[in-house]
Amino acid sequence: MTTRNNDNLQLNAAGKLKHLLSLDGLDKKFITRLLDNAENYLRPTGSLPARDYGLQGQTVANLFFEPSTRTRASFELAAKRMSADVLNLDVNMSSRIKGESILDTIFTLQAMQVDVFVVRDAGDGIPEFIARNVGNHASVLNAGEASVSHPTQGLLDMLTIRQAKGRLDGLIVTIIGDIAHSRVARSLSHGLRIMGNNDIRLVAPGGMAPDMGLYPGADLYEDADAAVKDADILVALRIQRERIEDPSGIPTEAEYNQRYGLTLDRVALAKPDAIVMHPGPMNRDVEISGEVADGPQSAVRQQVTNGLAVRMAVLSAVMESR
Amino acid sequence: MTTRNNDNLQLNAAGKLKHLLSLDGLDKKFITRLLDNAENYLRPTGSLPARDYGLQGQTVANLFFEPSTRTRASFELAAKRMSADVLNLDVNMSSRIKGESILDTIFTLQAMQVDVFVVRDAGDGIPEFIARNVGNHASVLNAGEASVSHPTQGLLDMLTIRQAKGRLDGLIVTIIGDIAHSRVARSLSHGLRIMGNNDIRLVAPGGMAPDMGLYPGADLYEDADAAVKDADILVALRIQRERIEDPSGIPTEAEYNQRYGLTLDRVALAKPDAIVMHPGPMNRDVEISGEVADGPQSAVRQQVTNGLAVRMAVLSAVMESR
Amino acid sequence: MTTRNNDNLQLNAAGKLKHLLSLDGLDKKFITRLLDNAENYLRPTGSLPARDYGLQGQTVANLFFEPSTRTRASFELAAKRMSADVLNLDVNMSSRIKGESILDTIFTLQAMQVDVFVVRDAGDGIPEFIARNVGNHASVLNAGEASVSHPTQGLLDMLTIRQAKGRLDGLIVTIIGDIAHSRVARSLSHGLRIMGNNDIRLVAPGGMAPDMGLYPGADLYEDADAAVKDADILVALRIQRERIEDPSGIPTEAEYNQRYGLTLDRVALAKPDAIVMHPGPMNRDVEISGEVADGPQSAVRQQVTNGLAVRMAVLSAVMESR
Repeated sequence: MTTRNNDNLQLNAAGKLKHLLSLDGLDKKFITRLLDNAENYLRPTGSLPARDYGLQGQTVANLFFEPSTRTRASFELAAKRMSADVLNLDVNMSSRIKGESILDTIFTLQAMQVDVFVVRDAGDGIPEFIARNVGNHASVLNAGEASVSHPTQGLLDMLTIRQAKGRLDGLIVTIIGDIAHSRVARSLSHGLRIMGNNDIRLVAPGGMAPDMGLYPGADLYEDADAAVKDADILVALRIQRERIEDPSGIPTEAEYNQRYGLTLDRVALAKPDAIVMHPGPMNRDVEISGEVADGPQSAVRQQVTNGLAVRMAVLSAVMESR
Repeated sequence: MTTRNNDNLQLNAAGKLKHLLSLDGLDKKFITRLLDNAENYLRPTGSLPARDYGLQGQTVANLFFEPSTRTRASFELAAKRMSADVLNLDVNMSSRIKGESILDTIFTLQAMQVDVFVVRDAGDGIPEFIARNVGNHASVLNAGEASVSHPTQGLLDMLTIRQAKGRLDGLIVTIIGDIAHSRVARSLSHGLRIMGNNDIRLVAPGGMAPDMGLYPGADLYEDADAAVKDADILVALRIQRERIEDPSGIPTEAEYNQRYGLTLDRVALAKPDAIVMHPGPMNRDVEISGEVADGPQSAVRQQVTNGLAVRMAVLSAVMESR
Repeated sequence: MTTRNNDNLQLNAAGKLKHLLSLDGLDKKFITRLLDNAENYLRPTGSLPARDYGLQGQTVANLFFEPSTRTRASFELAAKRMSADVLNLDVNMSSRIKGESILDTIFTLQAMQVDVFVVRDAGDGIPEFIARNVGNHASVLNAGEASVSHPTQGLLDMLTIRQAKGRLDGLIVTIIGDIAHSRVARSLSHGLRIMGNNDIRLVAPGGMAPDMGLYPGADLYEDADAAVKDADILVALRIQRERIEDPSGIPTEAEYNQRYGLTLDRVALAKPDAIVMHPGPMNRDVEISGEVADGPQSAVRQQVTNGLAVRMAVLSAVMESR
């Protein structure tokens, strides 16, 4: 697959965000402003969440054709806290079981005056396909697309890094896991490339190496310790358990943890102020040790909090394009 | 089954709508007023949907014992835009799995001060049965009942026809498909009979012919072309795929499309300003061709928009009966 | 299992309700005030439900790891009528299917600024475990825990008894059914013990007798008629149909009804003004006869109404602890 060129599809003539399909095609200034606005939606722990009336009277439909708890909940709460009406359409309820085409589902919801479509789908290209076909007033937000793109995850990861490091360039960022199938790795590395000159290191266990053409400027490592050495940011990806313990020589869970997991010993190889991230849900003691996940360097919960703020900022941004 | 006589059950002594179970028993004036009010809830594409505070503080429960995406979403958004609290109870979550009787489920929700029950059920007579048993303050809306009745679908179809033709009488209306199992055909033809003198033509492929006693004044056609000739309104029904390609001589999908589908060629036999309708979800290129579904004569998306407006008008109407 | 001692976990230093895990550890004065406040949320049949702005801006997550229609709906409507945002996370959508630990699910939702966790789980000790681990600002409400505890059910049962009898002491209360597996029996008998000196009689069909150490002061009866004699309150428990008609000598449904069911004849043995209760969903004509369930002594629907009021009062109470 070639690099996607959907600049004009995502931004309208005034440079406002119409759809969020991929971080490709957004520039440094745009992403900076989006992250700045997301900061406005953060509140101290224990206080009431931010509330905004920017989507009052609007309708947001969550179309999750793949199951998801956390991303669906995050978008649902983001939309509610922006005062939108929210319609959840899970895969079980979907017309797909009746064989309706996805576009007809979209057209139907559009005819009900749904304004924002939050779409998660296992199919490559589905969010862009929908964006090319919806009406002028509607927006499409990619909530996870095959192994291709997960732009709000990329944004929340960058917000988390910026909060910890004060910048998004000049960092050593190590991503470990099933890179080949990871939309999280794709979106984060694309975003970091846009934001500046970072040293991105990918560690992919056997059989999980990506097409490096998709990761220009990044380096592929075999050895996790070498990749973690002196890093500022450590990102463990979720491993599909069915991808390990398979007959093709991929290790057991314990071996995976020992060779690729973010253990206390391995994290100690990174910079002393390195932070540890994981998109969740975590397989504790496989790709990340419990002590690390709950330890002082862990930014895992902050990522979740930032995810909600980023999604509120994205909803706010697409309203400006109308 | 004889014609249902539930006039008094649907309307209270003051002639206000208490329950909506069937279009039978409503008169021309009542339906006209309901459609007029539905028009008030329409807004231009891309603008905010209409909002009404008529159900503020009320609770609407969507009880869908058959899966449905579009009808459930339409009722849910209608209720939210009328400012009601909405409770969705899908078949998966239903107490039915625990063996509770449907009336006990209703009584339980009524004890929680649910005011409006939107019910879809595969059982014939269930909405009426519930309406006969709920408390005085509660209303029951039939959201699709076996092959018997789907009154809000009938109303949205009539609203769509009235918008296109300016009237609901003196029209040639051709309905094609599995008439025998179609609550859509039943409700539309009943409604049109109430509204005036129309020429209703039914085309039912082999084995799908209805009891014509349920369609007084309508004519059964064998040949789709003859039935479409000079028609003002063409309605394709959704075909259950399992009903075609069966061993009993019913055609394959391609044959079905060729003999009964609303293709460009067939639509050209109707009046030049004929409109094409379908209750959705569509099996494209089976009962309707893609070019027709997306073409200038298609009213399919307008039907969806009208569905939401009609449901808001019905919710508003039942509030007046309290 | 020993009697739980979570006084300090449930109440904060000021004596305010932080979590509701069990009625153990609450005192008579506290329960009385909670029931008094629940009365404030009751409205006459057919009028609008009570609405309160006490949870405006707060987020309530319903985490139901066991399916439930009525309890989930009751908590959902209680939270909505208190003006909270509500997030429903049913077992089907749960991260558990992805193997995430329950605490990580809780931490994730907490990071999204969920304030109140309503938890139903088949695991013994799960609500307390969560309460011990959530942040200071969050509250956990037990919505049904294994066969251990169902405190809001106990409260709604007591409110129903108090309304009928004007008091919660000096009563003969007979509970019939699968006591061994009943969190309903546990919570009600614990609550009644706190409220004063009652004569609690348990009738457990073969194999369904509890550890009587969990029911101090209660008496176990073999014969339902003897236990019902002169009772003020009759409580039939829901029977899992799979627990009867099994090969171990437990009776068929008809035999169960004859020997243990609340039939008209059996109810006539109780005090003339006795009330009949059932937590629902009812197996009519098994543990309770239809005539009794719908008869003048039945408090079954009032229990449901009280359940919503009690849950609003509990939500209001935990807000005071913040």
